Amino acid sequence: MKAIALLRRHMPVLTWGRDYRAETLQADLLAALIVTIMLIPQSLAYAMLAGLPPEAGIYASILPILLYAVFGTSRALAVGPVAVVSLMTAAAVGEVAAQGTAGYAAAALTLAFLSGTMLLVMGLFRLGFVANFLSHTVVSGFITASGILIAASQLKSILGISAEGDTLPELLPSLLSHLPQTSLLTLLIGVVAVVFLFWVRKGGLKRALIARGFGPRLADIAGKAGPVAAVLVTTAVVWALGLDGWGVAIVGEVPQSLPPFTMPDLSTDLVGKLFLPALLISIIGFVESISVAQTLAAKKRQRIDPNQELIGLGAANLGAAFTGGYPVTGGFARSVVNYDAGAATPAAGAFTAVGLAIAAVAMTPLIHYLPKATLAATIIVAVLTLVDFSALKRSWRYSRADFAAVLATIVVTLGWGVEAGVSAGVILSLLLFLYKTSRPHVAEVGLVPGTEHFRNIHRHAVLTDPTLVTLRVDESLYFANSRHLEDLMLNRVAADCPVKNVVLMCTAVNEIDLSALEALEAINTRFRSMGVGFHLSEVKGPVMDRLKKTDFLAHLNGRVFLTQFQAWQALRPPMASAAR
Amino acid sequence: MKAIALLRRHMPVLTWGRDYRAETLQADLLAALIVTIMLIPQSLAYAMLAGLPPEAGIYASILPILLYAVFGTSRALAVGPVAVVSLMTAAAVGEVAAQGTAGYAAAALTLAFLSGTMLLVMGLFRLGFVANFLSHTVVSGFITASGILIAASQLKSILGISAEGDTLPELLPSLLSHLPQTSLLTLLIGVVAVVFLFWVRKGGLKRALIARGFGPRLADIAGKAGPVAAVLVTTAVVWALGLDGWGVAIVGEVPQSLPPFTMPDLSTDLVGKLFLPALLISIIGFVESISVAQTLAAKKRQRIDPNQELIGLGAANLGAAFTGGYPVTGGFARSVVNYDAGAATPAAGAFTAVGLAIAAVAMTPLIHYLPKATLAATIIVAVLTLVDFSALKRSWRYSRADFAAVLATIVVTLGWGVEAGVSAGVILSLLLFLYKTSRPHVAEVGLVPGTEHFRNIHRHAVLTDPTLVTLRVDESLYFANSRHLEDLMLNRVAADCPVKNVVLMCTAVNEIDLSALEALEAINTRFRSMGVGFHLSEVKGPVMDRLKKTDFLAHLNGRVFLTQFQAWQALRPPMASAAR
Repeated sequence: MKAIALLRRHMPVLTWGRDYRAETLQADLLAALIVTIMLIPQSLAYAMLAGLPPEAGIYASILPILLYAVFGTSRALAVGPVAVVSLMTAAAVGEVAAQGTAGYAAAALTLAFLSGTMLLVMGLFRLGFVANFLSHTVVSGFITASGILIAASQLKSILGISAEGDTLPELLPSLLSHLPQTSLLTLLIGVVAVVFLFWVRKGGLKRALIARGFGPRLADIAGKAGPVAAVLVTTAVVWALGLDGWGVAIVGEVPQSLPPFTMPDLSTDLVGKLFLPALLISIIGFVESISVAQTLAAKKRQRIDPNQELIGLGAANLGAAFTGGYPVTGGFARSVVNYDAGAATPAAGAFTAVGLAIAAVAMTPLIHYLPKATLAATIIVAVLTLVDFSALKRSWRYSRADFAAVLATIVVTLGWGVEAGVSAGVILSLLLFLYKTSRPHVAEVGLVPGTEHFRNIHRHAVLTDPTLVTLRVDESLYFANSRHLEDLMLNRVAADCPVKNVVLMCTAVNEIDLSALEALEAINTRFRSMGVGFHLSEVKGPVMDRLKKTDFLAHLNGRVFLTQFQAWQALRPPMASAAR
Repeated sequence: MKAIALLRRHMPVLTWGRDYRAETLQADLLAALIVTIMLIPQSLAYAMLAGLPPEAGIYASILPILLYAVFGTSRALAVGPVAVVSLMTAAAVGEVAAQGTAGYAAAALTLAFLSGTMLLVMGLFRLGFVANFLSHTVVSGFITASGILIAASQLKSILGISAEGDTLPELLPSLLSHLPQTSLLTLLIGVVAVVFLFWVRKGGLKRALIARGFGPRLADIAGKAGPVAAVLVTTAVVWALGLDGWGVAIVGEVPQSLPPFTMPDLSTDLVGKLFLPALLISIIGFVESISVAQTLAAKKRQRIDPNQELIGLGAANLGAAFTGGYPVTGGFARSVVNYDAGAATPAAGAFTAVGLAIAAVAMTPLIHYLPKATLAATIIVAVLTLVDFSALKRSWRYSRADFAAVLATIVVTLGWGVEAGVSAGVILSLLLFLYKTSRPHVAEVGLVPGTEHFRNIHRHAVLTDPTLVTLRVDESLYFANSRHLEDLMLNRVAADCPVKNVVLMCTAVNEIDLSALEALEAINTRFRSMGVGFHLSEVKGPVMDRLKKTDFLAHLNGRVFLTQFQAWQALRPPMASAAR
């Protein structure tokens, strides 16, 4: 029975599969149809963004979706190629192989394999908490900067020129130097496609259809098919007018087959080079996916298990590695479409996979004349909605530390690439947090009259006593601030002769580590030699448990009070208090 | 006038130099004499440990001492080669050049130059706080492990064999494989020297002299000269009996000159390779030095300015780089001797430098026949006092996190070398701290009867109310724990129907960052939709200031209470409370 429970925990399909009914099937089938239509151009486009042949995008959407349907916990998440991970793939794989070579596609498989393995291991060892260290503000800055980079990288396809670079300082000069070779026909197709897709995305097509008497539901579905319409129309135009002979780059030959079985190259050298990029892709992919999954789950009061999500995404990436794909994750746009279309269970994902498999076998000849500019337009319109500078504005007003982390993430991502950008953001936000905890806020407190409550003497009208100093240190005491604490307490008392007793109010002290304990011992020794009592108040349970294991309390030159008010009553000489 | 104040701040010599008097001179001269005698064998020995010719140790003690006397703030700190930094130098330089080559000595100069520059820059930008992130427990583990490594590395000189390696797993097999080549004469000299030096260090010589009627002060000075006696006697024996012809390794030719002017090699390649080791040496050296300086200053109630210390040590290292030395710092043993000998001002250091300069010019021929085994004995006896496993025992009893950090530092230092060891200790201790803050302790609290004080319902007999839940989160709210907080609060309330109001008691919340604010907004929205009030109590001043900049308080589905007791009085339905 235990084995079955374990199996059920790690394969949510066993839970939802038992209750599967006819009406659920109908909802899932309709959602799958809509998502399939949307995914075809998107998958081709993201594969192009990753520097891979277009079919890789379709392949990366088939087995991964099926595996996620078995192992994932989200009922609406749609897994496949996404913009940011495609960009990160291009940056990582571009370091080890040239685009268009067999080695490039092979390295993308290795990247998917590594990422899948890492996600799986993190899931099995319940390390999902690691993603918590990627702050939400850093992620939003990273996504914004990635959107800009992606849009810039697609300009070359809109202009019909070549340009290289993974960062703005590389990309922009390269674009400018090739500008004279712009293909006007390509530009025309690209600009028309961008304008059309923006209009569709803003609901223009839907409103136009409703105005012409279509039902709102049908108009909604047709609106989602806007990118497909752009693909069909531009492909037809290029084919009919033979524009590929006039300099319009087209997708060309795409193999007509189910996903092939592929073996990722696991040579030590390649694995070593791709290890760190794979880790960053795994974490970014996980964070993006879990945010989407949680947003959608919250709407239906469902639960997402982060560690099981890691297993689901890990399995999906391993699937991509063995079937000619590249790293995948849960995408925002496709998941929302899936959810809006009424997907009730992960089976909708399975049906989408079937739809894409049919497309891979039957429809690839139809996209031979698809202009690359249309795909670039699809990408640009998709990613520009990711670009959102409000996090910068919001953090500027709220906290300089948050602002610094977001700004650094954006600037480093644009200037030095995606891997450097996300690393800089994570490291800077952690360092700023550590810096803040190393310089804790310390308040000297007094009694709020008529209560048993103590507050900062500089902010509130409180009672104090010249012989009694109470310091409230607003931070756990640990190695990074223990020296600061020691300086601060000794300086406060050295400067003030009448002080007879010092109380360290520990309401905000959640931990005292060994270094801090040594600092407290040093303070205690110094106070004893100065004839000053050293007391603690409001020490939390877990902290007190630990102090009791040491001989600190036995040597303490004073007492430990349950409440600060008791300390005040016990240590204040009678009749000596004065309002301050 | 401002320029003069600035100059005075950065050159403490201008302050203490003005008050210099004859009796101070006398004290300083005596201290200098004692320290000079002690420093000669120690400098030779540490240079050998660093893999450098013996004179480098003398050179590294002359200009650096003078420069520290001008720029440093400690009155007793003696700057020069020390054991741990010598070992780190050997490890770092050994990576880029072979011992005994000109490149090796040149790389040591580069290392001193880089270290000096880093210290100076850190001092000028007031970055001394960086050293706070090196926890005291990690440092103690590192010093212990370094002591073992150093002693092991010197065994080869005691045995008169050759052995290589920067780590125990390299060093021990190398020693064992060369064991058959042991030189018995060398071993005899080495063992006698070790036993004698231990006896001297334990006070044996001093007691013996006092027993023979010497005055305690003279006996004390003579006791300190024990290593010099060992050097003199063994040199004389080797010379008289011609033992160098019987396989006893000797120091040999040492140039007889003042420190030469040297230019460090600043080629990009070398600087790149030595950058990280130089940073680690700088930080370890600074931490070691400042600990010694603060210990000594506390005894005389003097103040040490950590940022000015950085400048002093930076200048000293630059001095070493340009005069044929290698990285230096404030050493524990020599500083204590300097202090005990009565050094009153940094002038004592200057006189020591003069003494050593005379030694460099006049006395180097005398050490031609000095056996290397004697120097190895000096090092072994000096470093074994650094080995102290009590930190392991203490931390094991107190906190598993501290224990893990110390153990990792010791194991990694012994097994993978000094750089890996100190890095592992710092990184692990920071990660453990971050992990703890990402999983904060949360207590549900109730009123302690007869007070206005609230404590954990599971630890204390307190009053509670079924409609009112108060959660005290014992940590600042920031990105790493904001998701955890959200899950926890929603789960607590979802499981309990009668709950009408939730209070987040913020006594321990020292900071709410933007990610955590977003989590609070999400919690607020969810509680509103569930018909549950969401309140805050005891929010600290700085946190409140920041919240007031946002519209969070305007949307709050509840109130902010100054004290938890006020929240209790306002939110509890009349007559509903029950003891729990």
